[in-house]
Amino acid sequence: MSFLELEYSLNYKFSNNNLLELALTHRSYGSPHNERLEFLGDSVLNFAITIFLFEKYSDIDEGGLSRLRARLVQQNSLATIASDLNLSRYLKLGDGELKSGGCNRPSILADCLEAVFGAVFKDSSFNEARIVIEKQFVKLLNNLDLKTMCKDAKSLLQELLQSRKISLPRYLIVNINGAAHNQRFEIECIISELNIKTKALGDTRRSAEQAAAKIAINILTSSNYLDCYLYKSIKV
Amino acid sequence: MSFLELEYSLNYKFSNNNLLELALTHRSYGSPHNERLEFLGDSVLNFAITIFLFEKYSDIDEGGLSRLRARLVQQNSLATIASDLNLSRYLKLGDGELKSGGCNRPSILADCLEAVFGAVFKDSSFNEARIVIEKQFVKLLNNLDLKTMCKDAKSLLQELLQSRKISLPRYLIVNINGAAHNQRFEIECIISELNIKTKALGDTRRSAEQAAAKIAINILTSSNYLDCYLYKSIKV
Repeated sequence: MSFLELEYSLNYKFSNNNLLELALTHRSYGSPHNERLEFLGDSVLNFAITIFLFEKYSDIDEGGLSRLRARLVQQNSLATIASDLNLSRYLKLGDGELKSGGCNRPSILADCLEAVFGAVFKDSSFNEARIVIEKQFVKLLNNLDLKTMCKDAKSLLQELLQSRKISLPRYLIVNINGAAHNQRFEIECIISELNIKTKALGDTRRSAEQAAAKIAINILTSSNYLDCYLYKSIKV
Repeated sequence: MSFLELEYSLNYKFSNNNLLELALTHRSYGSPHNERLEFLGDSVLNFAITIFLFEKYSDIDEGGLSRLRARLVQQNSLATIASDLNLSRYLKLGDGELKSGGCNRPSILADCLEAVFGAVFKDSSFNEARIVIEKQFVKLLNNLDLKTMCKDAKSLLQELLQSRKISLPRYLIVNINGAAHNQRFEIECIISELNIKTKALGDTRRSAEQAAAKIAINILTSSNYLDCYLYKSIKV
């Protein structure tokens, strides 16, 4: 199969076409497949986006940068880029996946795109991979909603819940330890409607509330992502 | 403050000492502090370890590589390296943190070490940072317990539970969709004693069970890590 058009869109010419072919081979097709390259590419992508954000947004704090990065490298963004690149035309899938429309499944497309980034890195260098990645992400990078993404965890959690018409969280102090100049606050964040309760420590009431809100956001977003339901009750 | 000994241990001489000083400044000390460098360094570290594992263990699959990496970059490993480097001697902490023994707290040491790796990258290049990181991780890299780490998720979950004297998980088929040649299995992994129930899809019964076990491992390990307890009940 010729990869000319894909290489043109990537603006990168492979020295070793076998690497690109491997990146486009799903595990359903048999071994060897693209999962190791995906593992590599995920880290290449993460690092390239991290450097970009770190350099460009020197006034945004670590929490804001983390949220921007999470938004950029999420499955939907990757699948959109993969579709724009027509990756589905080149995918090697097993018969079962092929018949069930696997070549348009967002998870397969996203993983495959990461594997392609891994293949570029392996074929040349991190700098080459970084250029390829920035070219593909340029539209997303220019459209980042900084205002939303850089909000603190409590504000973000509030908006997340409001958008789903769920009652707002309550924050309770469950414990204060230490002498006056050196207190540690233990705060619970409670979202009754979802039966979610998280607990966190902090040097100030505010920092503990932020930390508890952050854990709640992680639960809400990772649960969607995992496409599963969980019942948990683990004691500290 | 002179950083000569630290630079000697890192086997790296900074061009810009201010970067190293920033990496050693905790947020409790005031602004600017090391959290942005920590964000950068976390990604540098992840990428360096990923490349190392990818190149060295060409016969280990993506799941095995992920587990090896998670073991290497976990807080305890980082804090141990930070202690060996005597990082606590150089830390700039606020009065409160100082009095409460913050300079020996594993989370502060681990974050600070990541910030130092970020500072090396910023001061020079990824290749320099990679050399510094590999030197610090050489002992851990040589002591990796491949046998344990490369086990599949079901085996790993079983051992995790047995080591805590908790009854083994049950796997139930809750649904099978699709025609004979193209079935999708929906499996529940139930750990009654902990009130944990996870659900996952797969093209085979085995792959769905592995996926459900993996989610259960994530819950068990991340709950310990987060030092919090959660009650969840989220419907698909």
